Amino acid sequence: MVLPTKAVIIEVGPRDGLQNEKSFVPTDIKNKFIEQLKSSGVTEMELTSFVSPKWVPQMQDAAEIVLVNSSDTYRNIVLAPNRKGVERALETGCKAIAVFVGVSNSFNKKNINKTTRESMEELKPIIAELKATNVFVRACISTSFYCPFEGKIAEEDTIALCKEFAQSGVDELSVADTIGMAAPTESFSLFSKLKKQLPEVLLTAHFHDTRKMALANIYAALEAGIDRFDTSAGGLGGCPFAPGATGNVATEDVVYMLERMGIETGIHLDELVKAIDIIAPSISRKIETGYYQLAKAK
Amino acid sequence: MVLPTKAVIIEVGPRDGLQNEKSFVPTDIKNKFIEQLKSSGVTEMELTSFVSPKWVPQMQDAAEIVLVNSSDTYRNIVLAPNRKGVERALETGCKAIAVFVGVSNSFNKKNINKTTRESMEELKPIIAELKATNVFVRACISTSFYCPFEGKIAEEDTIALCKEFAQSGVDELSVADTIGMAAPTESFSLFSKLKKQLPEVLLTAHFHDTRKMALANIYAALEAGIDRFDTSAGGLGGCPFAPGATGNVATEDVVYMLERMGIETGIHLDELVKAIDIIAPSISRKIETGYYQLAKAK
Repeated sequence: MVLPTKAVIIEVGPRDGLQNEKSFVPTDIKNKFIEQLKSSGVTEMELTSFVSPKWVPQMQDAAEIVLVNSSDTYRNIVLAPNRKGVERALETGCKAIAVFVGVSNSFNKKNINKTTRESMEELKPIIAELKATNVFVRACISTSFYCPFEGKIAEEDTIALCKEFAQSGVDELSVADTIGMAAPTESFSLFSKLKKQLPEVLLTAHFHDTRKMALANIYAALEAGIDRFDTSAGGLGGCPFAPGATGNVATEDVVYMLERMGIETGIHLDELVKAIDIIAPSISRKIETGYYQLAKAK
Repeated sequence: MVLPTKAVIIEVGPRDGLQNEKSFVPTDIKNKFIEQLKSSGVTEMELTSFVSPKWVPQMQDAAEIVLVNSSDTYRNIVLAPNRKGVERALETGCKAIAVFVGVSNSFNKKNINKTTRESMEELKPIIAELKATNVFVRACISTSFYCPFEGKIAEEDTIALCKEFAQSGVDELSVADTIGMAAPTESFSLFSKLKKQLPEVLLTAHFHDTRKMALANIYAALEAGIDRFDTSAGGLGGCPFAPGATGNVATEDVVYMLERMGIETGIHLDELVKAIDIIAPSISRKIETGYYQLAKAK
């Protein structure tokens, strides 16, 4: 078994992590959090989301966040759920945009009130336009394994959607176990196939730790050749539209495991802990990830 | 990658889990807990420990616990730290006894005030006597990967100690990551070697979830051919002599993952949750394992 020697962490805390927080986190705290994440060695990050401020008021400062981060060379990704969001993102000068679709129709409808097919048909011309202007496009594939409403998702459906996205020209696929229900054998199976069938895109695994299997799933994905992982500092987040989906896998726990296996991430854990310290007082629940708790207990 | 199709869960909650609880758990609660664990499908269990009641008052009712469980056909294991403990265990009619040694000298000294070598020399004739009377002997190997005082333990030292135990005639080796620090690659490496070199003994993996890697380590151990796992209902436990070693991996999370991968454990999760419900009010901390929390949130 040969594991990758390096891995890329895509930090999603500032977007996926914070979007569930009911109390508005002041913009300067968000920016300090993002700045310290970058100082810790994070090079790719979901900064914010151009969703409707009516639906997700937490993200109403998206343009301000992007502005502060516009002059560096990091991959500063913003999420945009539709054409309007993409236009707002482009107006602020975004160079990397994430779009998303759920493999599950029911999930996609609950999330953005469109079928998966309707979403794809809306997104394809948008992706073409973005690629024509050299914007980095990341496609987030929700409910790639299980759906809170439909149960198990057929592997071939996920693969088909991933292929369709790849053909439409996206740079990256973030394949998500949205409700933290995949088992390691499922992680290995899907990612092995995607790795073989889609050599032209960056493949990223996105796991939630709802059932404590996230690190096992990441280990299985590494065995399938995956070397990019979405993680959230402090394990912040979940999904507002996916019942029981609390908790992205924590950046610090993933970095710790990867580094302990000799897989370089370029992230310094002590500096990462400082980033969590910045955001922790603004978070409604206690941060109880393994590494952070141990670091604070010292 | 061929994983085992069945796995055996050795429940250690009543012993390893409860020994750290400062408030005495009434004997009848312990017995109800054990009874319900058996009802859920557990067939091998560490029931209690014949340690000095002065050192671990929680285990002062060891003889009573054994008595209640003496008439069934389950593998009812009791821990005995020394000759005196073994004698007390035999007096109550125990048919399965666990002894323990730390690979790390420092750990062993802190734990039972003997060097690893002194422990081995004391245990060898005891093991021979136990085997002569057909008692099942389980050897628990602490600090098989890391020691809180000595840091990394050389793999060859752990293997050498396991071999010595195997040669002394034990039936089972429970190889423990006492402080929850092993990475999956280390789990795979050690267990692959043990599996090849010691085909004559039952090999059991014992992981703690201190750094959230327990399920990943179990998955890696499965890949190495291991099909026996020590787990603790509700994730109870830790080690009083190992700083920061809170939390055995939770039985319910392991069973969930194994069953989800098609690996039969014979354990019914709904019944297991009832066992945790029995013990939860007596436990000083909140039970926050993945499966139990989700089951209770329903």
